[in-house]
Amino acid sequence: MEPIEKYLEAQADKVHRFLEREVESWTEIPPPLREAMAYSLLAGGKRLRPILVLATAEALGGSADKALPFAGAVEMIHTYSLIHDDLPAMDDDDFRRGKPTNHKVFGEAMAILAGDALLTKAFGLLARAAREAELPAETALALIEEGSRRFGAEGMVGGQVLDIQSENRRLSLSELEAIHRGKTGDLIIYSVRLGALISGSTKDQLELLTSFAGLLGLAFQIQDDILDVIGDQETIGKPVGSDQAKNKATYPSLIGLDKSRELLLKTVEEAKKLLSRPCGIKAERLMQVADYFALRNR
Amino acid sequence: MEPIEKYLEAQADKVHRFLEREVESWTEIPPPLREAMAYSLLAGGKRLRPILVLATAEALGGSADKALPFAGAVEMIHTYSLIHDDLPAMDDDDFRRGKPTNHKVFGEAMAILAGDALLTKAFGLLARAAREAELPAETALALIEEGSRRFGAEGMVGGQVLDIQSENRRLSLSELEAIHRGKTGDLIIYSVRLGALISGSTKDQLELLTSFAGLLGLAFQIQDDILDVIGDQETIGKPVGSDQAKNKATYPSLIGLDKSRELLLKTVEEAKKLLSRPCGIKAERLMQVADYFALRNR
Repeated sequence: MEPIEKYLEAQADKVHRFLEREVESWTEIPPPLREAMAYSLLAGGKRLRPILVLATAEALGGSADKALPFAGAVEMIHTYSLIHDDLPAMDDDDFRRGKPTNHKVFGEAMAILAGDALLTKAFGLLARAAREAELPAETALALIEEGSRRFGAEGMVGGQVLDIQSENRRLSLSELEAIHRGKTGDLIIYSVRLGALISGSTKDQLELLTSFAGLLGLAFQIQDDILDVIGDQETIGKPVGSDQAKNKATYPSLIGLDKSRELLLKTVEEAKKLLSRPCGIKAERLMQVADYFALRNR
Repeated sequence: MEPIEKYLEAQADKVHRFLEREVESWTEIPPPLREAMAYSLLAGGKRLRPILVLATAEALGGSADKALPFAGAVEMIHTYSLIHDDLPAMDDDDFRRGKPTNHKVFGEAMAILAGDALLTKAFGLLARAAREAELPAETALALIEEGSRRFGAEGMVGGQVLDIQSENRRLSLSELEAIHRGKTGDLIIYSVRLGALISGSTKDQLELLTSFAGLLGLAFQIQDDILDVIGDQETIGKPVGSDQAKNKATYPSLIGLDKSRELLLKTVEEAKKLLSRPCGIKAERLMQVADYFALRNR
């Protein structure tokens, strides 16, 4: 088995090349819109969510080729959410992944529309991927319905609303968790479930993977909060301490840095323990992915 | 056959009640987001697009009950596009349908998110409706893929980009048509095609209805432009002359009011002529709808 770094690089590259091919096929999109969409979609980033789709599909013996368009759709959703989150009316961020944010380059109107277009495109891609994979209608439509909840008003968009409302307010730990469950957890859960559902997972496997993904999402968020305090700007692609500057609640601000690290380790261990149960999942890669992303030092 | 006014009122009411029931079912959405979504979705309006879904389904002998959720999804798409179009970074409108625009009431961040949420919700509703109607997988996925194009980057969103880029620029008639085809035409075409596809239309019927809808969309836009010049504020729900004030190209500004009226009549006649061909479509209602909306005086 190749080292996890190589694996992640290869998977991220696969996703990137898929997205490049998609962009090339967008010949009917007005050029400035296409450029704005491509700018953020091809800006790099860890490609964590699409990698989770691919790694989960592989863990269930599914085909990575079949999973790739689904993975691409998830990355489009993630990218749209970043573009809109960065807008002046929202988090008002100037940098993302070390590059000027979408609205800084293309203006606010175009950034709003590029986000809308990527969100809309992602649903089309989910449908196309389901058609190409010849999924049964029931599975295909369930995927789309679940996506609509997980990254819509009940999930990611709802989490963003809770986040905005919580600024400058002292939160409880459970309030913070509710925000993160929506803002980042639901799309991570969706990525894993998507990989499972398109690979014919059993009900038990799906439940286990869903719990794993919930813990993974929590771990990522704790780690993100920790990195905002101790990371360096180059690695995280935005100024260190930008959450603090905005008076956003974070794990370190609520329970301190040491307790945050403790909680992080505990959460990752719990997540991996779930996958070590015997249920026919080749879980090694997924466990490595969890370790790598949740415990990276920088 | 009841008079067209009664019919339209009854259909709009049916759509409105369906959307009210949907909003009631949104118990997992954070209340402020739900409120912002419901504010614009239930603000009334002509409900033209969902009525086209219903009327087309009926014209093909389809069930209006089955068509209703699809109609609701189309209205969600239309509503999201209005919320985003009205934003300060876009058209910067303070009034819509005679009420303060979404961002005026809920703030810009919430308006962006309410739009995102309605767009996402609409795809989930399309998938749910397809499942409930037990459409074949092929049809269901094709509907969603086509939607993604018609109201996405290749259609409605793309048209909005062209519109923004054309401000303060003298356009040719064909440039103006391209903008409108995207901005309003594609969603009208989609509404008609949706009504047809879920009602088992033949290929010939679908082609005819698509051409009809293209002309209808054009007629609506010419009429909208005319009303912006001669209508009264109460009827159109926004200040008269607001397109002129923004230096937007319109049919009257390009070819004059008289020629615009002439083109409108010609376009509606052409649209109706298409439907009068013998092809098994009970077209009377659709023709009335075309007449009513495209030729309304106020």
